[in-house]
Amino acid sequence: MSQTKSVNIDLQRERDKCTFSVTELTHLLDGGPQNTEERKKIEDMVLKEGIHNEDIPSEYLSHKEKYEQSVKKACLLFKMIRRLQEEENTGMENYRAVLSGMLGSAILQDGSPLTLHYVMFIPTLMGQGTVEQQAYWIGRAFNLDIIGTYAQTELGHGTFIRGLETTATYDPATKEFVLHSPTLTSYKWWPGGLAHTANYCIVMAQLYTKGQCHGIHPFVVQLRDEDTHMPLPGIKVGEIGAKLGMNGTNNGFLGFDHVRIPRDHMLMKNSKVLEDGTYVNAPSSKLTYGTMMFVRVMLVYDMCNYMAKAVTIATRYSAVRHQSQLKPNEPEPQILDYVTQQHKLLIGISSVHAFRLSAQWLWNMYNNVTAELDAGEMERLPELHALSCCLKAVVTADAAECVERCRLACGGHGYMLASSLPLMYGLVSAACTKVSQCVAAIEQRQKTGMAYEDAWNLTSVQLISASEAHCRAILMSSYYEETQTLVQDASDPLKKVLLQLVDLYVVYWALQRVGDLTSICERDVEHLQAWYESLLTQLRPNAVGLVDAFDIRDEILHSALGSYDGRVYERLMEEALKSPLNKEPVNESFHKYLKPLMRGKL
Amino acid sequence: MSQTKSVNIDLQRERDKCTFSVTELTHLLDGGPQNTEERKKIEDMVLKEGIHNEDIPSEYLSHKEKYEQSVKKACLLFKMIRRLQEEENTGMENYRAVLSGMLGSAILQDGSPLTLHYVMFIPTLMGQGTVEQQAYWIGRAFNLDIIGTYAQTELGHGTFIRGLETTATYDPATKEFVLHSPTLTSYKWWPGGLAHTANYCIVMAQLYTKGQCHGIHPFVVQLRDEDTHMPLPGIKVGEIGAKLGMNGTNNGFLGFDHVRIPRDHMLMKNSKVLEDGTYVNAPSSKLTYGTMMFVRVMLVYDMCNYMAKAVTIATRYSAVRHQSQLKPNEPEPQILDYVTQQHKLLIGISSVHAFRLSAQWLWNMYNNVTAELDAGEMERLPELHALSCCLKAVVTADAAECVERCRLACGGHGYMLASSLPLMYGLVSAACTKVSQCVAAIEQRQKTGMAYEDAWNLTSVQLISASEAHCRAILMSSYYEETQTLVQDASDPLKKVLLQLVDLYVVYWALQRVGDLTSICERDVEHLQAWYESLLTQLRPNAVGLVDAFDIRDEILHSALGSYDGRVYERLMEEALKSPLNKEPVNESFHKYLKPLMRGKL
Repeated sequence: MSQTKSVNIDLQRERDKCTFSVTELTHLLDGGPQNTEERKKIEDMVLKEGIHNEDIPSEYLSHKEKYEQSVKKACLLFKMIRRLQEEENTGMENYRAVLSGMLGSAILQDGSPLTLHYVMFIPTLMGQGTVEQQAYWIGRAFNLDIIGTYAQTELGHGTFIRGLETTATYDPATKEFVLHSPTLTSYKWWPGGLAHTANYCIVMAQLYTKGQCHGIHPFVVQLRDEDTHMPLPGIKVGEIGAKLGMNGTNNGFLGFDHVRIPRDHMLMKNSKVLEDGTYVNAPSSKLTYGTMMFVRVMLVYDMCNYMAKAVTIATRYSAVRHQSQLKPNEPEPQILDYVTQQHKLLIGISSVHAFRLSAQWLWNMYNNVTAELDAGEMERLPELHALSCCLKAVVTADAAECVERCRLACGGHGYMLASSLPLMYGLVSAACTKVSQCVAAIEQRQKTGMAYEDAWNLTSVQLISASEAHCRAILMSSYYEETQTLVQDASDPLKKVLLQLVDLYVVYWALQRVGDLTSICERDVEHLQAWYESLLTQLRPNAVGLVDAFDIRDEILHSALGSYDGRVYERLMEEALKSPLNKEPVNESFHKYLKPLMRGKL
Repeated sequence: MSQTKSVNIDLQRERDKCTFSVTELTHLLDGGPQNTEERKKIEDMVLKEGIHNEDIPSEYLSHKEKYEQSVKKACLLFKMIRRLQEEENTGMENYRAVLSGMLGSAILQDGSPLTLHYVMFIPTLMGQGTVEQQAYWIGRAFNLDIIGTYAQTELGHGTFIRGLETTATYDPATKEFVLHSPTLTSYKWWPGGLAHTANYCIVMAQLYTKGQCHGIHPFVVQLRDEDTHMPLPGIKVGEIGAKLGMNGTNNGFLGFDHVRIPRDHMLMKNSKVLEDGTYVNAPSSKLTYGTMMFVRVMLVYDMCNYMAKAVTIATRYSAVRHQSQLKPNEPEPQILDYVTQQHKLLIGISSVHAFRLSAQWLWNMYNNVTAELDAGEMERLPELHALSCCLKAVVTADAAECVERCRLACGGHGYMLASSLPLMYGLVSAACTKVSQCVAAIEQRQKTGMAYEDAWNLTSVQLISASEAHCRAILMSSYYEETQTLVQDASDPLKKVLLQLVDLYVVYWALQRVGDLTSICERDVEHLQAWYESLLTQLRPNAVGLVDAFDIRDEILHSALGSYDGRVYERLMEEALKSPLNKEPVNESFHKYLKPLMRGKL
């Protein structure tokens, strides 16, 4: 009761009229009440450490201070994880829960300089190292004796791997590889943690031996002295500069001036270079596929988290905010009563469910394929690769649009960093690829002749639409199928609302793509439009309940507009008062510039 | 010749194959060679002062330092303008050229805390003050004896003016108005320069006299002591906190605790309060219309400038950047050779022309209406109001999409602040309204009965589409008509390319809105699609020439990706090296946190 009192009255009214059990939906989303309980326990455990608290909100810090704060937080986080593992003997699942997803991003809101150590450095050692190499490196990496990252992209070269310029030339005289950056465009560019954090790096380079190039291979290179952290001779390393978002990730550049590493620093699980320089070919590249698949599926889950946060913020704000008049002489309505607002929010909510269930479906498919791989069957690998690539592209693009739409749906206040929405857009936007790359991946499998490429380019505008349509069809069918399974044991009211969301999603995309549906007539469009609006009206009373069920606690949501109690205006003012500019009534620039200008004495 | 040598070879090749005279187009856009010369002269004059130079790029500064730097720059800029006016006796046109448009934004890249002084404070004094009030205030304001801003929006209330809560209650005993903020939601929120810069403010407040409310009226209120700059008693003022962009504008909040101002600080050109408290009604509100119209037309021009910058950056980068392979064993093509890229860039270029010419057309229409107003005719005013509102909404939305599409078209490097595109998105995005407000403005003129409002809400998704379609139709027709006039005296090659751009724009929007064109059949769509792709192919060789013609010099473009010489990679590295983090090989956080963590001693 006492908790209810402090909640904004409009928000409370929304909760009172919700037709389904929010807790039931939360349990369903977590995969059962035990999982919900476990999740909350970990959240409590981690958040009570207070690492996420900031004296001055990071948006007021300088670029350099932001990096320093993110190193501090990342280190304290790992210290805590170590302690928890020792004290409470919690397993690796918790470890992952703390590092990724909602909780990790709540603590390191603008990215972590240690992410690539766990997400790319260690997995690549595991996937591409021989047993001996794994024995040597993985323990050191897990123990954080060394901090690594993974460098592939170059200043002049992105996703097209064959275009990379960095060379690793084998010298049989000394049994060493010589790493070299022949041009400015060959500098490694982008890897997180590379600039000032990592002291080791897996470098992807063109392997030359006996005068022949054998393509891209992975090499472990030490970048900095383990004791002083000074860059080693021949290593040119630094940060690439300020970015739209992710300014806590310490993205770096890296150039080599004939840097020598021992032969066994090439990861040789697949391909090998023998002592005399003989190249022995790789039996398969399935593990490269595997790592990328894992990264993509995780990314789709991440996007779902961001979208869930964004729609939670925008929906609660829309229940609290009143604006304009629908009818003369009536009070200003909640903006949630505007159909255009319902449209933006509910499509966002249904997309979270659609993507979450599709990611789950893809994950299951991946596990099946991995089992097949172990049995030597590799036929479904390219299909899965193309699918994951395409889903990733559609999901990241839609997520960016959803977050931005939520920001705009909050009007001017969405422009405040205190809303958390601009920062979130920066993060989501970092994951966007141009869908065209994926089309290439898919189309390559179907190509028929040499002239095809020109034709492909000429018609690629349509092709992209076509392959996007294909992806969306898969998304819709997996969303529909997986929801059917999900609601089997759900109560009737919950089942009803989840199925309404599926309908909304499908009708929305049918309307968006009317041009693709050539057999549709004008009356069909009108019918779809009417259906869509009726679904919005039916879902309207449950909008707040639907986002409450995502169960994102305030510390993780981190938004003045979206907190559970709906005290939007109080929080906006509280956040404003945290600005260092507000600590002094008169800024020194008045005395230095403004007053002299006003008195004609500048 | 010597200049040509340093230009990237791909970019030079693009320039060599351009089919029209870039200089001719520049002259056409400027409105004649004399204007081009004059513009360049002013640019030279202002830029040689070096105010735009920064020791450390502002993206590396803290929020407080950013404000301090923008005050410094704004003050130096005005000092220079004063000097130029005295020395060279240049008129007001130059004054405007320096403050607004390309040049002003090049110097104060993230907004100026003095903008509202010129854009709202002075114009409102001129528009709403009596002759006596103008005599008293305008000289002081122009002379910068005082610095003002304009406060309307409140924390809990946006564009719906009747909902504002701040009160100004007349006290006939002392002949004063008492300004008061009855609630937290009534705090003024957002005005630029309000936080720590302005010492005066025009405050929009609900006027109460003799116990009656007469709606919103403007009051001049002193906020800070003219000498010490300390806030006056009863004034609660500060900044609203960090935002997505515009962090140089010093947006503030403002609350009143029974603050008394003299009766004649109410601006009384239209409505009056007599000494005894009698309210005398306004004869018309035409001047409020006028100010807003002016602001909107200027805004459309601003959006054109941002779009021109964004497409210049993305097009030049697309000529320099090579990626992937179209055909096996061929070198990586320029990304400008991909049809999908051409599509993004050329639609952006044609939109700049479309919006520029539509703004010009609106401006002429506005001047005609103003002439009519002076003659007592006011019939066309609401139509013009609705049109300008609607065009503003469509243009700001499209500009934001265009800038963001250009950013994404630059791949990962578009995510770097050194590209200038993220900051530009922040600026353009600040101007976006939800198109729905404009629909309201238009629809209000057509409403027929009481039940209409419910119907309006229920079908507003379609209505917005319909009114957007109406706007786009006007845009297309004004673009077409104005281009016809523009090219009358142009050379044939230039005429051809400008008309191709119009075709591209129209065909693109026809394809985008196939759903609206119910009479269209499948074959028509195919025909349009083929036409569209043929236009892209024809325009492709002129892409770089078309953006060169915008003639945005490097200091104004301020982008590592878009400079005239195309030295993209060199500039990216040069910019990276400016990061304060790169001044030290080892950051102190290594010794404080990383090393202790690695040694288990944190």
